[in-house]
Amino acid sequence: MSTVKLWQDEDVEASPRVQAVFADIRATRKSDFVNNFWRALANQPELLESTWSSVKRIMIEPGILDPLTKELIYIAVSTANSCNYCTHSHTAAARAKGMTNEQHAELLAVMSLAARTNSIANALQIPVDDQFLIV
Amino acid sequence: MSTVKLWQDEDVEASPRVQAVFADIRATRKSDFVNNFWRALANQPELLESTWSSVKRIMIEPGILDPLTKELIYIAVSTANSCNYCTHSHTAAARAKGMTNEQHAELLAVMSLAARTNSIANALQIPVDDQFLIV
Amino acid sequence: MSTVKLWQDEDVEASPRVQAVFADIRATRKSDFVNNFWRALANQPELLESTWSSVKRIMIEPGILDPLTKELIYIAVSTANSCNYCTHSHTAAARAKGMTNEQHAELLAVMSLAARTNSIANALQIPVDDQFLIV
Amino acid sequence: MSTVKLWQDEDVEASPRVQAVFADIRATRKSDFVNNFWRALANQPELLESTWSSVKRIMIEPGILDPLTKELIYIAVSTANSCNYCTHSHTAAARAKGMTNEQHAELLAVMSLAARTNSIANALQIPVDDQFLIV
Amino acid sequence: MSTVKLWQDEDVEASPRVQAVFADIRATRKSDFVNNFWRALANQPELLESTWSSVKRIMIEPGILDPLTKELIYIAVSTANSCNYCTHSHTAAARAKGMTNEQHAELLAVMSLAARTNSIANALQIPVDDQFLIV
Amino acid sequence: MSTVKLWQDEDVEASPRVQAVFADIRATRKSDFVNNFWRALANQPELLESTWSSVKRIMIEPGILDPLTKELIYIAVSTANSCNYCTHSHTAAARAKGMTNEQHAELLAVMSLAARTNSIANALQIPVDDQFLIV
Repeated sequence: MSTVKLWQDEDVEASPRVQAVFADIRATRKSDFVNNFWRALANQPELLESTWSSVKRIMIEPGILDPLTKELIYIAVSTANSCNYCTHSHTAAARAKGMTNEQHAELLAVMSLAARTNSIANALQIPVDDQFLIV
Repeated sequence: MSTVKLWQDEDVEASPRVQAVFADIRATRKSDFVNNFWRALANQPELLESTWSSVKRIMIEPGILDPLTKELIYIAVSTANSCNYCTHSHTAAARAKGMTNEQHAELLAVMSLAARTNSIANALQIPVDDQFLIV
Repeated sequence: MSTVKLWQDEDVEASPRVQAVFADIRATRKSDFVNNFWRALANQPELLESTWSSVKRIMIEPGILDPLTKELIYIAVSTANSCNYCTHSHTAAARAKGMTNEQHAELLAVMSLAARTNSIANALQIPVDDQFLIV
Repeated sequence: MSTVKLWQDEDVEASPRVQAVFADIRATRKSDFVNNFWRALANQPELLESTWSSVKRIMIEPGILDPLTKELIYIAVSTANSCNYCTHSHTAAARAKGMTNEQHAELLAVMSLAARTNSIANALQIPVDDQFLIV
Repeated sequence: MSTVKLWQDEDVEASPRVQAVFADIRATRKSDFVNNFWRALANQPELLESTWSSVKRIMIEPGILDPLTKELIYIAVSTANSCNYCTHSHTAAARAKGMTNEQHAELLAVMSLAARTNSIANALQIPVDDQFLIV
Repeated sequence: MSTVKLWQDEDVEASPRVQAVFADIRATRKSDFVNNFWRALANQPELLESTWSSVKRIMIEPGILDPLTKELIYIAVSTANSCNYCTHSHTAAARAKGMTNEQHAELLAVMSLAARTNSIANALQIPVDDQFLIV
């Protein structure tokens, strides 16, 4: 289904760079499971390394926003961009980080309200109020 | 600039339905300021009423997600949908609800990471892992 | 503001191909006004010719859908694609073809409802019902 | 495939709120068929109620635009937003409301023309003509 | 899966217009394979003819940009628009025109960087520098 | 106009991290001009550093795709994502790297053709041909 080969564990042995990233994914997540996103990126070691490094720094290392809030934002962006894979993987990640059905429901309510008012504001081409501008 | 007339306070007097919504916006927000989004929607009383009612219920009345988190999600969706007006108004709303520069920075980091991996996953047409599916 | 020069009437004299398209726009629309879209496309005579020819055939020549319905669809797509110029120009075109405030309001209601349910369906990754498939 | 459970008829019995909406969907549409969109939303009774109430009011109750025109607009928005589920369900709905192959073909012609000129206008960043502005 | 019938070779015999386009596709590409995009468009002979004519002129006939560069641009747009079919078909086309894994990797790097900075610039609503404007 | 302060040269003196990035931008580009994108990102030193580092590595350091091709792809993505700032800045960058009017015209032709066929393929929900799949 993908436009590139998905690397299986035996393929990874041929590339030390890919091997290193897969090992770090497993160690960081404390799980043997490496999802298809990384198996597809394995075809491009540099992109694999830089993408994993960004995901680790932004989504996994402690920041100011809590981990679940970051996943909710990720789902919202992925849905707006119609990325089916990302919507699936980050909904699963949000659940793993404790998202309840009630939080999911409220995320959907906020996201779909935003999509609705975005449509209205773009259709009406509403000028930005002076009060919203940075002086 | 807009594709419809923006209703000024003196125009509102002619329509009791618009007057009622504007009064509720002012009372709910404890502020005399009514932003252009509502002044544009005033041309369509039914849409004005149903939209304000949804915004009030979802964004203002207490829910499970805290008010700032809801604004961060709103900014993320509005940006992905390229709604300039909504990005401005909800960034201002997030600031009014206490968003710090550091939280804004982290929101940007998460949003732009999501946009980047959405692009990769869509380009590679990665199949969803069985582990992410609801049994 | 544009990324290319907007051709003024005196510039057009230098290019017979641009001149011919501008003349046909004026004759077809029975108006001397040539809007900026065509003045920007004048830099690329081939694209100008093929785009005008498509717009004339699809939007102006009689078809199965009535002219106003076609403009409503055009506004809906332009808004969803966040094309500010197109939203302005086709809202003006719809008004010129008789769109009332009430029709505009109902268009906004349908468009923003679609944007809202699109967001929900994409977030929930709902599988297509067998009943919707072409056998 | 979905990110939430799809409620089957036997699940619905446990929730009077879901039961009431499903009953109203069946009565309104005069059909026993309840499509997956509502079965997915059943996890969130409040969102289910408010979404069905909007769909019923905007798409089913008589308005100014005729029912088929509203479905054509819905397809156009859903396609632009890459909502696969919505494109399928509203194309089926349009057919049920009488859309012919010829009307579908003309819808596609208008939609794809809009997408093409949206791309050009956004790339050229064309300034809005004064003539299109509301004074 | 599609919202329209996919025309098989035996169906084509009934329509001389479809037959002519299919014959030209085969002759132009020097291959008997006609992909599903054209088999779906066969339901709409006029749209089939005008779309094939544009694809042939823009993507197949010699132009200023080389054929592979045009395919890379096509993949970039199709991915940004979440068109799964187009991403698959044009990645295959790019490979057929010689795209290497290294070129594909660099395309992904550029595309995903653009998506990331688009997100940032839209979120920050950055004003265009005077230096970028056409005088 | 922006949702954050644009840092002027005198503001930069207060932050060694921002100063270092601005100095590197000027040295790398051999120009004193620092455009607003970086002046807006200066509010978030970490995001400024990581974004500039990616832009430098992907867009400026020699790669497999030539610099102009990379700019054409950047324009295509930015336009599809309706990023007005990015469309302006990368069209200017493409011109600075030698893009001619003829190349710009052909880019527009390819981009707008892709947008048009994306719309058709998404509307028809065309299934991917087996021939396009990676075995």
